[in-house]
Amino acid sequence: MSGSPLGADALDLLFRDARTYYSWDETPVTETELRALYDLVKMGPTSANASPARFIFAASADARAKLAATASAANAPKILAAPVTAIIGFDTKFYDKLPILFPPADARSWFAHSETVARETAVRNSSLQGAYFIIAARALGWDTGPMSGFDKAAVDAQFWAGTDVETNFICSLGKGTTEKLFDRLPRLSFEDAATIL
Amino acid sequence: MSGSPLGADALDLLFRDARTYYSWDETPVTETELRALYDLVKMGPTSANASPARFIFAASADARAKLAATASAANAPKILAAPVTAIIGFDTKFYDKLPILFPPADARSWFAHSETVARETAVRNSSLQGAYFIIAARALGWDTGPMSGFDKAAVDAQFWAGTDVETNFICSLGKGTTEKLFDRLPRLSFEDAATIL
Repeated sequence: MSGSPLGADALDLLFRDARTYYSWDETPVTETELRALYDLVKMGPTSANASPARFIFAASADARAKLAATASAANAPKILAAPVTAIIGFDTKFYDKLPILFPPADARSWFAHSETVARETAVRNSSLQGAYFIIAARALGWDTGPMSGFDKAAVDAQFWAGTDVETNFICSLGKGTTEKLFDRLPRLSFEDAATIL
Repeated sequence: MSGSPLGADALDLLFRDARTYYSWDETPVTETELRALYDLVKMGPTSANASPARFIFAASADARAKLAATASAANAPKILAAPVTAIIGFDTKFYDKLPILFPPADARSWFAHSETVARETAVRNSSLQGAYFIIAARALGWDTGPMSGFDKAAVDAQFWAGTDVETNFICSLGKGTTEKLFDRLPRLSFEDAATIL
């Protein structure tokens, strides 16, 4: 059941004052904190509870350097500076977990018959889960820096080799510092983006 | 800058106690409330601020009947019962708005050169915005019912004709009632979904 709306401070934290960060202070993100974050992210809704997102947290100096080497020139220093950057991927064979994740029906058969349907489902729903990751991190008091400027084939080869997972996007996590922030960019008006019928 | 973490009640509202709803009470969702929701959703981050999501809110009896006619047998009654169901689409020519949305650089050229890159960006980022929609609705005290069981070609033809927009997924909005809820389904453990390197 829905509850009382959140107050203005919470809406500011999650949406209105939150920004995409490019530089980070020294605050570490511990394994305990990553697990607490995952425990929120996993609860967000996905089609038939398919939960296709997979996460690699590049936290060690070695892992961050390896990830930075796959990134655009603009993004590499952001990755090196962040305490952790998450690689958010999708399991192209996510449907093999549906007998566990969706016991009420044979949901595996809804997706396993078609590589096109399976991939569309994996991309859409891992993107939803990537957004849950961003908002859940903010809810826990972290800042985020999502990025899509990297060599996907290189990240796939170096981080997901031997699995059925491919990379969707990456997202730094930590306590952001403000010196490299853009000015707030404009948004589309309701009239430009929405219609009520 | 990040702020204090939200309290347990807020995390419950957004993630832990929130559910996907299939039945709805009589509470209407007004235009004022849809605009307040959009004003949160639009602030969520997208690649180069591209903001490709477009929204049609099927709120009238006619619009809901038209949308229900495109849906799977399981989803049609859910649409008819909900006060409003949002059609969340993506503008395949989103890049034409980048001169307004991203003044610092010629971001249009990053996407307009390749239909593949543009479509991947539109799908990924409109999905992120769809997740912001779900979480922002919960933050405002609403329940949601996201669905992907519908005839995409029919929704595209009947709701987005004459535009460059295609449908991503649909999501009912209102005050849910609990009689048709599934039991809470299991989630993947941290070990099954995540690795720290």
